[in-house]
Amino acid sequence: MSVTNEAEDMAATARYRFLLIQAFRLPEDSPYRHRRIGAAREQALMNFDFVGPLLQDVDWEVHAGALTTYGDWAVETRAEFAFSAAARLPLVREACESGKYNAIVLLGGGEPGFLESCEIARPFGIPVTSCAFSQMHYATMLGNKFSVIDLAENHNMYYYNLVIQHRMADRCASIRMINFPHERPGHEVERQFHVERDKARRGEFSVAVEEAVEAAVAAIEEDGAEVITLGCSGTFWLQPILQRRLNELGWEVPVLEGYRCAITLAKSLVDMGLTASGLTFPDVRPRRWRKKKVF
Amino acid sequence: MSVTNEAEDMAATARYRFLLIQAFRLPEDSPYRHRRIGAAREQALMNFDFVGPLLQDVDWEVHAGALTTYGDWAVETRAEFAFSAAARLPLVREACESGKYNAIVLLGGGEPGFLESCEIARPFGIPVTSCAFSQMHYATMLGNKFSVIDLAENHNMYYYNLVIQHRMADRCASIRMINFPHERPGHEVERQFHVERDKARRGEFSVAVEEAVEAAVAAIEEDGAEVITLGCSGTFWLQPILQRRLNELGWEVPVLEGYRCAITLAKSLVDMGLTASGLTFPDVRPRRWRKKKVF
Amino acid sequence: MSVTNEAEDMAATARYRFLLIQAFRLPEDSPYRHRRIGAAREQALMNFDFVGPLLQDVDWEVHAGALTTYGDWAVETRAEFAFSAAARLPLVREACESGKYNAIVLLGGGEPGFLESCEIARPFGIPVTSCAFSQMHYATMLGNKFSVIDLAENHNMYYYNLVIQHRMADRCASIRMINFPHERPGHEVERQFHVERDKARRGEFSVAVEEAVEAAVAAIEEDGAEVITLGCSGTFWLQPILQRRLNELGWEVPVLEGYRCAITLAKSLVDMGLTASGLTFPDVRPRRWRKKKVF
Amino acid sequence: MSVTNEAEDMAATARYRFLLIQAFRLPEDSPYRHRRIGAAREQALMNFDFVGPLLQDVDWEVHAGALTTYGDWAVETRAEFAFSAAARLPLVREACESGKYNAIVLLGGGEPGFLESCEIARPFGIPVTSCAFSQMHYATMLGNKFSVIDLAENHNMYYYNLVIQHRMADRCASIRMINFPHERPGHEVERQFHVERDKARRGEFSVAVEEAVEAAVAAIEEDGAEVITLGCSGTFWLQPILQRRLNELGWEVPVLEGYRCAITLAKSLVDMGLTASGLTFPDVRPRRWRKKKVF
Amino acid sequence: MSVTNEAEDMAATARYRFLLIQAFRLPEDSPYRHRRIGAAREQALMNFDFVGPLLQDVDWEVHAGALTTYGDWAVETRAEFAFSAAARLPLVREACESGKYNAIVLLGGGEPGFLESCEIARPFGIPVTSCAFSQMHYATMLGNKFSVIDLAENHNMYYYNLVIQHRMADRCASIRMINFPHERPGHEVERQFHVERDKARRGEFSVAVEEAVEAAVAAIEEDGAEVITLGCSGTFWLQPILQRRLNELGWEVPVLEGYRCAITLAKSLVDMGLTASGLTFPDVRPRRWRKKKVF
Amino acid sequence: MSVTNEAEDMAATARYRFLLIQAFRLPEDSPYRHRRIGAAREQALMNFDFVGPLLQDVDWEVHAGALTTYGDWAVETRAEFAFSAAARLPLVREACESGKYNAIVLLGGGEPGFLESCEIARPFGIPVTSCAFSQMHYATMLGNKFSVIDLAENHNMYYYNLVIQHRMADRCASIRMINFPHERPGHEVERQFHVERDKARRGEFSVAVEEAVEAAVAAIEEDGAEVITLGCSGTFWLQPILQRRLNELGWEVPVLEGYRCAITLAKSLVDMGLTASGLTFPDVRPRRWRKKKVF
Repeated sequence: MSVTNEAEDMAATARYRFLLIQAFRLPEDSPYRHRRIGAAREQALMNFDFVGPLLQDVDWEVHAGALTTYGDWAVETRAEFAFSAAARLPLVREACESGKYNAIVLLGGGEPGFLESCEIARPFGIPVTSCAFSQMHYATMLGNKFSVIDLAENHNMYYYNLVIQHRMADRCASIRMINFPHERPGHEVERQFHVERDKARRGEFSVAVEEAVEAAVAAIEEDGAEVITLGCSGTFWLQPILQRRLNELGWEVPVLEGYRCAITLAKSLVDMGLTASGLTFPDVRPRRWRKKKVF
Repeated sequence: MSVTNEAEDMAATARYRFLLIQAFRLPEDSPYRHRRIGAAREQALMNFDFVGPLLQDVDWEVHAGALTTYGDWAVETRAEFAFSAAARLPLVREACESGKYNAIVLLGGGEPGFLESCEIARPFGIPVTSCAFSQMHYATMLGNKFSVIDLAENHNMYYYNLVIQHRMADRCASIRMINFPHERPGHEVERQFHVERDKARRGEFSVAVEEAVEAAVAAIEEDGAEVITLGCSGTFWLQPILQRRLNELGWEVPVLEGYRCAITLAKSLVDMGLTASGLTFPDVRPRRWRKKKVF
Repeated sequence: MSVTNEAEDMAATARYRFLLIQAFRLPEDSPYRHRRIGAAREQALMNFDFVGPLLQDVDWEVHAGALTTYGDWAVETRAEFAFSAAARLPLVREACESGKYNAIVLLGGGEPGFLESCEIARPFGIPVTSCAFSQMHYATMLGNKFSVIDLAENHNMYYYNLVIQHRMADRCASIRMINFPHERPGHEVERQFHVERDKARRGEFSVAVEEAVEAAVAAIEEDGAEVITLGCSGTFWLQPILQRRLNELGWEVPVLEGYRCAITLAKSLVDMGLTASGLTFPDVRPRRWRKKKVF
Repeated sequence: MSVTNEAEDMAATARYRFLLIQAFRLPEDSPYRHRRIGAAREQALMNFDFVGPLLQDVDWEVHAGALTTYGDWAVETRAEFAFSAAARLPLVREACESGKYNAIVLLGGGEPGFLESCEIARPFGIPVTSCAFSQMHYATMLGNKFSVIDLAENHNMYYYNLVIQHRMADRCASIRMINFPHERPGHEVERQFHVERDKARRGEFSVAVEEAVEAAVAAIEEDGAEVITLGCSGTFWLQPILQRRLNELGWEVPVLEGYRCAITLAKSLVDMGLTASGLTFPDVRPRRWRKKKVF
Repeated sequence: MSVTNEAEDMAATARYRFLLIQAFRLPEDSPYRHRRIGAAREQALMNFDFVGPLLQDVDWEVHAGALTTYGDWAVETRAEFAFSAAARLPLVREACESGKYNAIVLLGGGEPGFLESCEIARPFGIPVTSCAFSQMHYATMLGNKFSVIDLAENHNMYYYNLVIQHRMADRCASIRMINFPHERPGHEVERQFHVERDKARRGEFSVAVEEAVEAAVAAIEEDGAEVITLGCSGTFWLQPILQRRLNELGWEVPVLEGYRCAITLAKSLVDMGLTASGLTFPDVRPRRWRKKKVF
Repeated sequence: MSVTNEAEDMAATARYRFLLIQAFRLPEDSPYRHRRIGAAREQALMNFDFVGPLLQDVDWEVHAGALTTYGDWAVETRAEFAFSAAARLPLVREACESGKYNAIVLLGGGEPGFLESCEIARPFGIPVTSCAFSQMHYATMLGNKFSVIDLAENHNMYYYNLVIQHRMADRCASIRMINFPHERPGHEVERQFHVERDKARRGEFSVAVEEAVEAAVAAIEEDGAEVITLGCSGTFWLQPILQRRLNELGWEVPVLEGYRCAITLAKSLVDMGLTASGLTFPDVRPRRWRKKKVF
C-alpha cells in the first residue's frame, strides 16, 4: 500500500507514526504526471527540502494515493474532488485498521475526504489533519484575517466552499487568483506551473512568482490579509519564496503552506491524545445521542 | 439507465423534462431494502401520493440511483455520503449529455453530490436541485428560522455540515433528533422506521409520529423554529402527518419535505431559464476569471 | 378595481389565479407618467415581452395600484414608500376577501407593504410575493453573493434597509448606483431613464445601458457579485440587455429582475400549498403563542 | 396641532425644543381609549411621574398623534403600524417646517415611521429619536445582550423585524411574551393590561407584574439577557416596578423603557449638533452620491 | 489629585458632577510633552474650544492622569495601553470612593482601562464612559457603518481590538491610517502632528488635514463609511475641520470625536440613573449568579 | 528571575526552550496561597502529573510570576487581570531580551497580558501562547462549538470578553458556572476549591467534580457544546477527571485544559518558525504600513 519500505520497521512505540496520503495518484502513463513515483518517500513528498525537517522525529510513510477514477489529469473541479474523496476513504480506513499509525495526514491542498476521514478515524482514536483546514486554523492564530493564493478558477470556487465549511468566511480576506490551471485533455496551458517552479528554484525569473507576489501584496493592501496561505498543493513550493519576497518588500507577514501545517497539527493532537469530538463525528450507534443540535 | 420506460416518448418540446435521481440503489439482495424496485416510476418514487400532483405537468423519469459501493445498507454516515456522491455524478453527467432533460432533481435528503452536480450541469444550461438545499431556501422565505427533524445521530451531524455549507447557520434554529437510525449489519434496530410509517398510514398509533410531533413542538417552543423541515428522505412521509398534527395543536407552521421543494424549485428555474452562476461554478477554462473572491 | 376585464371569467378552478398589484398609481394628469393606463393588462405590465410568457398558464389581473397620496411623481424616498405601503394594503385585503385569487404578486422594485401584505393574506391561505424579496432569494440559490443595480441615491438607501430586513446583508456584495433618479417637481433630470430604455430597445446607443454594464462588471470584479439583481422596477427592462452584454463580455452570470422572480415564486408557493408561517405572521389572536422568540 | 397650549411661549433660544408625537390617536368615541385626551400635556404623556423629570429642562409639546385610519383600536399588527407610520409622517414634516423644534421624539413602542422620519427631518438638521431604537442602543451600551418584554404575539413579531432592521439580532437575547393583547372589535380580553397597571400602582397584586417578572427572570437565566427592555409602549409603566422587583430578587440588571431613552437620546444629539448621516438618509438630490454601498 | 482647584466647591447637589481622567501623564521633564500641565482645567482639556460648551452645565474636574510607568513618551502600543490601564484604575476607584462624582469620563482615544473601570464603578452606581466606546455607539445610531481615522500603525491595530471587543466589527467600515505616529526615543518624526494642528488652527495649509480629508473620502467612497470617527485623542482636533471640509466637498456625513461623545453619554446615563449591568460587570460576590452565559 | 535552577544549563541548541510565566505571584505571607513556591519547577507547575509529559522534550523554566500589586489574593476581576497584565509584561520583555527562550507560555486561565505579550515578543521572533486562546483554537479544530466550565461570576464575565476578543462568540456554546470563587479578604468561602481537588485526587467524593460534570452535561445537552474547555487555571485539575466521567456517561467529548494546549501550541509555532503576524502586531515603526484595516 505504501510507496516506501523504510517504515516497515516502524516501532510501535514511536511517538509519532504517521501515514501521509496523497490526494490522488495519476496513472503511470499519464502525460500530466510531473512527479516520479516509486523511489524513496523523500522524493514522493513534494517540497521535501522544507517539509522534511518536520518529519525527523516521525516514523512516516507516504501513501501514493488512490488512482484517479475520473481521468488521468490532476484534480481541480468539485466533481474531481468528490471522486478523489471517495477513492481515498478506503485508504484511510485501511490505515486505521492496520494499527500502524497514530495520525493520518491528508496531502492535497483541497483536502478531498477530510471530514469523512475524521469520521472514519475517530473511533480508532486516530486524528486526521489536512492542508486547508490546518492552514486556516493556524492562520487565524497568527492574525485577524488571511488570504489564499490559488491557481485555477474552478479550484478557487471549490476552495471557497471549504472556507465556508470550516466557518472561516469572516476570517478569510480573499481568495486571490494567479491563473495557472492544471493541464488536462483539450486544455493545454502555455504557462506550466511546474516549469515556473523549476525556474524559481534555479534562481531564474519566474512569472508565477511575480504574480504570486503581486496577488499577496494586493491581499495585504486591499483585502486586509494579515497572513498569507496557499490553496492548491501545487502552489506550496511558493511558500519560502513568497515569504522571502514579502519580507524584502517590508511586509512582516507569515506565509503558510499546507504540508507543514498539517504535519504539525497532527503532532499536536497526538501529543495531547486528542481526536475530533465524538459529538461532531458520531459513531454509527453512539453510546449517547443529543436531542438537538444548534449552530 | 432509467427504472421506467414510460418516458421514452418524452416530447422534446415538453415544458418540464426532469430526471429524478435516487441518492443510491441497494443491491437487489440487500436485506435492508424496503422499497420494491422495477415496477412503474410511480412506485419508485416515495410518497407518490403527495408528491405526484407536482409531476402532472412534467415529463419525468426516475433513475434508481447508482448501486451502493460501500455496502448493502442505506447511506447514513459522512463517508457513505461521499461514496454516494461519487457514484451519482456520472449519472448526472450522462443525463446532461443525453439532451433529454431540462432539469435534474436529486432525490435523497442528504443530497449527496449536489454542488458537484451543479458544476457538471451548469455548462449544459441545466439546473440541478436537491432536497436539503431546496427545503432550507423555501423555509427561509416562509419564516425567520427553521428546524430540521432528522432520524440518526450521524446523519444529523452530516446534515449539520450541509446547513453550514448552505450558509444557513443563522437561520437554522436546530436539528432535532428522533432516534430511528437505519438498520445496518451488526446494528439491528428494535423500532423500524418504515414499520412506523406503515402504521401511521393505516391510521394506527405510531411512536415515530409522536416523537416527531414532540420534537417539532420543542423546536417551535424552545428553539425558535417558525418552519419545520425534514432531514433524511426516509422521514419525508411524515410531512402531511406532521403538518396536520401541528395544526391540530394550534401551531400554524409550514412543514416542508424535500421532494416537493426540489421539484418545485426545478420548475422555477426552468421557467426563468436559470442555472447556477458560472462564477460560482466555473467551467474548466472559463471565458473570464476574477482576480479575487470575497466572502 | 382591476385595470382589465379579461379575467372576469377567471375560472375558480384555474391552477394559478393571481392579482398583480402595482406599487402606486400616478394621477392621470401627472407630468411624470410615462406609461399609459387603461388599455389591456398586457400594456399595463411593464416588460410584457419577457414577463408575459410566465403568465401564460396563469389567470391574472393587474391592479393599477393605489393613487399616490404624497404627490404626483414616482415613489423614491423612504417616506414615499411608507405612503405607498399604507395605500396598497387595503387593495391586498380586498383581493384576499374577494376569494378570486390564490396568490398576490406585488409589483414595484421596492416592494412597499410586503411584510404587511403577508400578514394580511396569510390567514386567507394566500401567499404574497414581491420583487426585492424574490430576487434576493433566487439570487442566493444561484451564487454566493449578489449585487443590486439601482438608479437613485435615496432609493439605494431605502433598498439597503430591505436587504437588512431580509437578512441578506452577508449575501449582498453591494448596491451599485447608476444615477438616473426619477423626475419630480423642482428636480428635472437631463437624462431620462425611459428615454434610455426606448433607445436601447430600438438598438441605439444608451448611456444608461453602458453605465449599468459598467456597474455590473465592477460588482463582479471588485465586490464579489456572482449574481446581478435589479433594484427599482424602473430598471427591470435592463434584464435581457444586461444579461446579453455580460455574456458577451464572457461573464456567465445570471441577471435577475423582479417581476419574473415574484411571479415564479408565487407559482411555487401555490404549487406546494404554502403561505408564510403563522408564527412569523401571527393572527390577531393566534391559537397558540410562544413564550419567547429568538434570533 | 398640539394637544397643549403651554408651549406657545417656547423660547426659540431654549436649549431643547422638542415635539413628542404619539404613535396614533384613537377617535374620541373609541371604546378602546383608556387615556383622556385634551387636558394638559402632563396628562397626555404616559407615565409622567417618572418620565417628567427628564423634561424639566426641555420646552416640550406633545402632539396627540394622527387619527387612526384603520379602525378605532390600538395599533398592534404590522399593517396597523404601516397605517400609523404613513399617518404620522406629515406631522413630522410639519413640525420640521415650523422651525419650532430642534428634535422630534416619536412616542410609541413600535416606533411607526421612524426611519422615514429621520429621512424627512435630516435636511432640516433635526434629529428624530424613537422608543425601540433608543432602548436597543442604550441596552447594548450597558450589557452584552438584552431581552424585550412585550405583550402580544403579533406585536412581538412586528418588533422582531425592528430588531433585525436595527441590526441588533446578535445582541437581542429574546423577545419574551406576556399575553396581554390590546382589545379590538370581536376580541375582548379577560385580562385588561391598563387594569393591571392601576392595580400595580395602587400596590395591589397584579398578575401582569408577576408574569413580567417571570418573563424577565427567564430572559436572564435562560436566554442570556443582561439588560431588560420593554416593547409596546403600553408596557412602559412596568419599568420602575420591574426594576425594583428584579433588584429585590438580587438581579442587578438595568430595566429600560422607551420614553426616557428616546428623550435622553434626543438631548444627546442636540447637545452635539448631530443628526443622522446624510449618506444613510440622502436628500432627493444629494450633492454627492456614492457609486456603491456595502454591508 | 486633580489638576485644578475650581471644583472644590462642587455642589453635591449639582446635576452632573464629572471627573475627567486623562489616559496618562508624561513626566514634567519629558521632551515629548506638548501640553502645559497645571494651569486651569480649561487648558488641561484638549480642544476646549469645541468641547467646553458641553461642560457648561457640569461641575467638572480634570485629573491629569497617572504618571506613565513605561517611559516618558505618549501611549501607542498595546503594552503601553496595558500599563496605562493599570495605572489609571486606582484613580477611578479613588474617584468613586470620594463620593464627589456621579460619572467618570475617561479621556484618551484608546480608552485604557475602560471595561475595568466600569467594573470598579458599577457597585458605586457611577457610570463610566470613554472615547472609543462612545464614538462607536453614537456612530451606529447615525449611520450603517463608520470608519476610524487614526494616526499610527500600532495604534490602529490596538484600536482594531477595541472594535472587536465592542462587537462593532460588522459596523466598522475600516480604520484609515494617516501616518503621524507619536515621537518616542530613537524615533524622531519629521512631521509632527501637533505642529500640523497649530498650522491648521492658524488657517495655514496642513498636510495632516489634507491626508485626513483624503482618508475620510476614501472611507466614504470605497469602504462604505457613513459616519467618520477619530481614533487617537491626538487626532480629535481634526473634528471641526474635517466636518467642514467634508461638507464643502458635498459629503453630508457626521464627524465625531471622543470627548464630546463620552461627556454626552455620561450625561445621558446620569439623567436616566443608569450604570452598566451588574450581570455584565458582576460584584466580587454578586447576590445572584447565572448558571450559564451565552453569546 | 526563575523559580528553579535546573535549566541553567539549558542548551542554546535545544529544540524547545520555553519560559512558562505564572499569571501572578501571591506574597509569601498571603493566607490565600495554596501552592508552595520555591522548590523544584515540577512543584511550581500545577498538575504536573498530566502536564509534565509534554515538557519532556523541552528545556523549560517556570517563572513564578510578578508579585500581585492589587492585594494578596488570587486574580479574579477584570481590574485584577489588568494589574496582572501590566505586571507580567516586563517579565515577557526581559525573557525575550535574554535570548534564552524560543517561546513563552503564559500560564493562568485568563491569560492576562496575552495580546500585549505577542506584541512585545514578535520582533524577537518569539511566539507567545496562553491558555484561553490555545484552548479555544484547539476546541474549534475538534468540534463545532465548545463550552467553558468556570468558577466565579466575575471571572466568567471577564472570560466572556476574551471569547469576544478572540472572535469565538459564534463557536462558544456557553460559559457554564460552578460557583467556587477564590477566597479574598472579607469573602471567606465555605467550599474551598483546592480542598475539592484534594478530595477528588484521593478518590473521594467531591461536590466540585459533581457540579462540573453536571455543568458539562448541560453544556452538551442544552447548549450544543461538542468540546469542553476549562476557564480559570484553578479548574484545570478537573481535566482528566471530567474527561473520564463524561466518557463513563457515554459522552465521547474532548475535555481540554489550558497548560497542555498552550505548551503544545508553542511547540507547533516553534516547529514551523512562526510568530504572530507583523501586520497584526506592528512594530513601533513598521517597515511598511497599510492605508486601511478592515474587519
